[in-house]
Amino acid sequence: MFQSFETTASPGQGPARLAALRDVMEREGLDGVIVPRADAHQGEYVAPRDDRLAWLTGFTGSAGWCVALRDRAAVFVDSRYRVQVRAQVAEVFEPVDWPETSLGDWIAGALPAGTVGFDPWLLTVEQKRALEGKLGAITLRAVENPVDRIWEDQPAPPMGKIFAQPEALAGEPHGAKIDRLAASLEGAAAAVLTLPDSIAWLLNIRGSDIPRNPVPHAFALLHADARVTLFVAEAKLADLGDHLGGRVTVAPPEQLLETLAALEGQVRIDPASCPVALAEALADPVEGPDPCLLPKARKTAAELEGARAAHLRDGAAMVRFLAWLDDQPPGSLTEIDVVRRLEAERRATNALRDISFETIAGAGPNGAIVHYRVTEETDRRVAEGELLLVDSGGQYVDGTTDITRTVAIGDPGPEEAAAFTRVLKGMIAVSRLRFPKGLTGRDIDPFARAALWEAGLDYGHGTGHGVGAYLSVHEGPARIARSGTVALEPGMILSNEPGFYREGAFGIRIENLIAVEDAPALQDQTVARMLRFETLTWVPIDTRLVVPALMTGAERDWLNAYHAEVEARIGPLVEGSARDWLSRACQAI
Amino acid sequence: MFQSFETTASPGQGPARLAALRDVMEREGLDGVIVPRADAHQGEYVAPRDDRLAWLTGFTGSAGWCVALRDRAAVFVDSRYRVQVRAQVAEVFEPVDWPETSLGDWIAGALPAGTVGFDPWLLTVEQKRALEGKLGAITLRAVENPVDRIWEDQPAPPMGKIFAQPEALAGEPHGAKIDRLAASLEGAAAAVLTLPDSIAWLLNIRGSDIPRNPVPHAFALLHADARVTLFVAEAKLADLGDHLGGRVTVAPPEQLLETLAALEGQVRIDPASCPVALAEALADPVEGPDPCLLPKARKTAAELEGARAAHLRDGAAMVRFLAWLDDQPPGSLTEIDVVRRLEAERRATNALRDISFETIAGAGPNGAIVHYRVTEETDRRVAEGELLLVDSGGQYVDGTTDITRTVAIGDPGPEEAAAFTRVLKGMIAVSRLRFPKGLTGRDIDPFARAALWEAGLDYGHGTGHGVGAYLSVHEGPARIARSGTVALEPGMILSNEPGFYREGAFGIRIENLIAVEDAPALQDQTVARMLRFETLTWVPIDTRLVVPALMTGAERDWLNAYHAEVEARIGPLVEGSARDWLSRACQAI
Repeated sequence: MFQSFETTASPGQGPARLAALRDVMEREGLDGVIVPRADAHQGEYVAPRDDRLAWLTGFTGSAGWCVALRDRAAVFVDSRYRVQVRAQVAEVFEPVDWPETSLGDWIAGALPAGTVGFDPWLLTVEQKRALEGKLGAITLRAVENPVDRIWEDQPAPPMGKIFAQPEALAGEPHGAKIDRLAASLEGAAAAVLTLPDSIAWLLNIRGSDIPRNPVPHAFALLHADARVTLFVAEAKLADLGDHLGGRVTVAPPEQLLETLAALEGQVRIDPASCPVALAEALADPVEGPDPCLLPKARKTAAELEGARAAHLRDGAAMVRFLAWLDDQPPGSLTEIDVVRRLEAERRATNALRDISFETIAGAGPNGAIVHYRVTEETDRRVAEGELLLVDSGGQYVDGTTDITRTVAIGDPGPEEAAAFTRVLKGMIAVSRLRFPKGLTGRDIDPFARAALWEAGLDYGHGTGHGVGAYLSVHEGPARIARSGTVALEPGMILSNEPGFYREGAFGIRIENLIAVEDAPALQDQTVARMLRFETLTWVPIDTRLVVPALMTGAERDWLNAYHAEVEARIGPLVEGSARDWLSRACQAI
Repeated sequence: MFQSFETTASPGQGPARLAALRDVMEREGLDGVIVPRADAHQGEYVAPRDDRLAWLTGFTGSAGWCVALRDRAAVFVDSRYRVQVRAQVAEVFEPVDWPETSLGDWIAGALPAGTVGFDPWLLTVEQKRALEGKLGAITLRAVENPVDRIWEDQPAPPMGKIFAQPEALAGEPHGAKIDRLAASLEGAAAAVLTLPDSIAWLLNIRGSDIPRNPVPHAFALLHADARVTLFVAEAKLADLGDHLGGRVTVAPPEQLLETLAALEGQVRIDPASCPVALAEALADPVEGPDPCLLPKARKTAAELEGARAAHLRDGAAMVRFLAWLDDQPPGSLTEIDVVRRLEAERRATNALRDISFETIAGAGPNGAIVHYRVTEETDRRVAEGELLLVDSGGQYVDGTTDITRTVAIGDPGPEEAAAFTRVLKGMIAVSRLRFPKGLTGRDIDPFARAALWEAGLDYGHGTGHGVGAYLSVHEGPARIARSGTVALEPGMILSNEPGFYREGAFGIRIENLIAVEDAPALQDQTVARMLRFETLTWVPIDTRLVVPALMTGAERDWLNAYHAEVEARIGPLVEGSARDWLSRACQAI
């Protein structure tokens, strides 16, 4: 079982650890220290060693900060964690609404002047710049990590094995990627790569240092002469053989700073992800986006083929799960039962490398908590008349999946069905859209919401995020959201997941993954190049919750065609009662 | 008749005038001069005295530039004027595609170094900054206007009378506006106002210095202590009486620069519209948007009431015109006949102060020229089987109108009808939209296009522009377009005018004006504040061109409800055959 249901919060430890941290501040002459949740690689998941924020404060969310001053300490959390943080941290930590209140504003308000310490490996260039813009008379000082100095039994850095991603799945040899990207550096002598999924993609490798994302902790230098220096612990490479080849030099991570310091010419860093420690080691840094971001997002034909295969496999597991779920009497299951069964179905494929994130299974009011993760403490019986929202995904060697289905348990009421139908209309609107090349996710996002807006409803998250190819389930730079400023391009895989949440009552989300593709030209077409979305996810959508009168003919046609396709594709992969269930679930409305 | 059909181009004069201009350059030691189309107030229309670009080059478009060097001269025109410019200017002027090629890039490419002269009254702060960013070793030098020095019979500045806009129509006394805006200056001692419609709105006055826009040429200073200094020729005020009141001081325009130079404290300028001459006169300029822009765009209840009344009056004139048009045998009219009749119908209201822009009446292929203005030379017979696109509007004391209808002459083909229906679907999608407060025009724009995109079609202009209250028919800052970054707010009047243009064949545009309003809260609404559009324009849409099978039920319902409302509102205002025609035109589909 990948997922655990433990409540790891231990608010009791906070006061003593905060006191120890203040001893360090005292010795160092600091008036405060900043403890981010992020590690040096700025990902969503951290290794146990890097889980400093949770160790110090008890707060276990996937994003956040602690700022400890001599007499006050704050934990900054975003809207997902406003309730959770209060249960997890002791009273010595004030919860602060972030990003509404920035760290810089809070510090400047709490401290007239002084010196605040930070670990330069854990703060990005942009984060430091934003802080400095707010701090006025307060100085930032780079220090050795203050938490590490008091964390006696801190785990060792992860030493997960690195393995090759087969070229047949990657679709491009890593030598060709290196050539292509080295030629894109626009005069820089090298680019610093700090994002593990960028390095994994570039070198066609995968790793196992953190849960859920199959990436290695490593840094790399991409040189303009098409060589790469990979800074990684040698032991992780034991099983890799000669995959890397002659153009990739492996160096111990301890040599990173001195190597950077010795580089001649301009060296490119991405200020959004590069740690301050690396930027400051360089003689002539120049800023630009990580050169892997866009090429990685444009999946190769082989990666798209892999994604299709992974989605059929994952879809069959989902269908077996949904058939089983439908067969259980309402009230007989808890959310944890649901999560266990779903993971078991995915494991039964014998191809599951990991789940792609912690399954969200929220029944009734828990469905309205957008990033709900069930624990032994919050576990809830799934009762008759409720909606059950299940958002989950798998990591397979050929692709990463992410799917949400909202299921009727027994007979939910008309409000639920009307809202479900509006969410579905939005999801169909995006699925059906043809649009000129050049549009960004911001231009697409409103189509997912218009049917909800009609009823005065909306949802507080973006419509879709990019998804990696056996990499991170949340992958930039494109997204379908008001913040989506990157033009959509063929090959990008995105989620399409509108929702609606009635606080304290129910939650609805319907999510397919979609891939951007060229739309074949139509007769008399005047737009030079049109794009559309290929659907990757093939799993029934609960038609018991659809109000046909709220749908247009074209929407009903889409839904019926989708279900016919689901049955045609998944039918041959499932048997017995699951096969029977599938036929019923795919009936036209 | 406001509109004229003369071809004012006279390419023959260009070479001699360019030679005279080069004599000035020679005497001044200049390697080039910049001649913009704009005057010091950056509006769409200029007085004859300010029509320097047309006088020098022959080019009569409403936007553009000439750059004359010692041995080359270019006329920069945007996509609307690429064909027209070739017919209007002599060979000594090279047409340049603008803004694809910026003035700065062209000059830097043509001139290794040197000095280029410009009139600091005609270049904005932003325009000069953009130029300087490109010019490298080339220096810009402010000079007395070089065209004025060679234009012997240059007309005098306009001396149009200024008159008061009744408070009952403005909805807010100008004293209250001054108080409100003075309080918004954020620490600045004053703001420089250079846009005539800002000044006209602030002081509840209108003017008659230029065609189509009822505004005066004037400058003003809004002081933080809620006084205004109005720089305008005294003679224009002869009929105004004591409207301005004690808090507005009138000063001669000749005192503007010295007054600016004597100001103490920070003085706000809008770099997008403020002439360089004014900015450079100030000791301590600070940049910010013209403080009138947003308040002016948020129409008062009285202005909205006036707009409704103006649209009923204008709608009745349109209906009389359309009824007449339908009664003429195909092939019996030319585009000029159409324009004359429409203006005559508007004049017959006895309320028309001006047309709000030159009527666009394009038959067949001329309809595909988005900013077509018919002249004696281009005039075309409106033939059987063609579409006739008519885009027009009126200036009334209570409101500014702008409407486009595309009409079937005889029996156009199925391609025209299908495209018309898709354009209509987009126009209806915007009309029907409810959306959360905070969205910008960019978020709305895609809804107007999705039905066209479905068929691989699109249009190359924005979906809508702001419209003034008896002011400019094109008014910022909000617009429905990819460039629309301003949040829509209740009271804003916008056009909703999707289109489709098949080059060489036909053009379609359907345009209503709409006003943003609060949407009444619905049961179970979760969004704090929703907005919607009130329709202002009530004129039949040609249902002979609608393909019902391409419409959804909700779209047909909207169209039928719209026509029922048109008949109910306009029916009582028209008589005889126009009344009969209206009933037929408003029949449900």
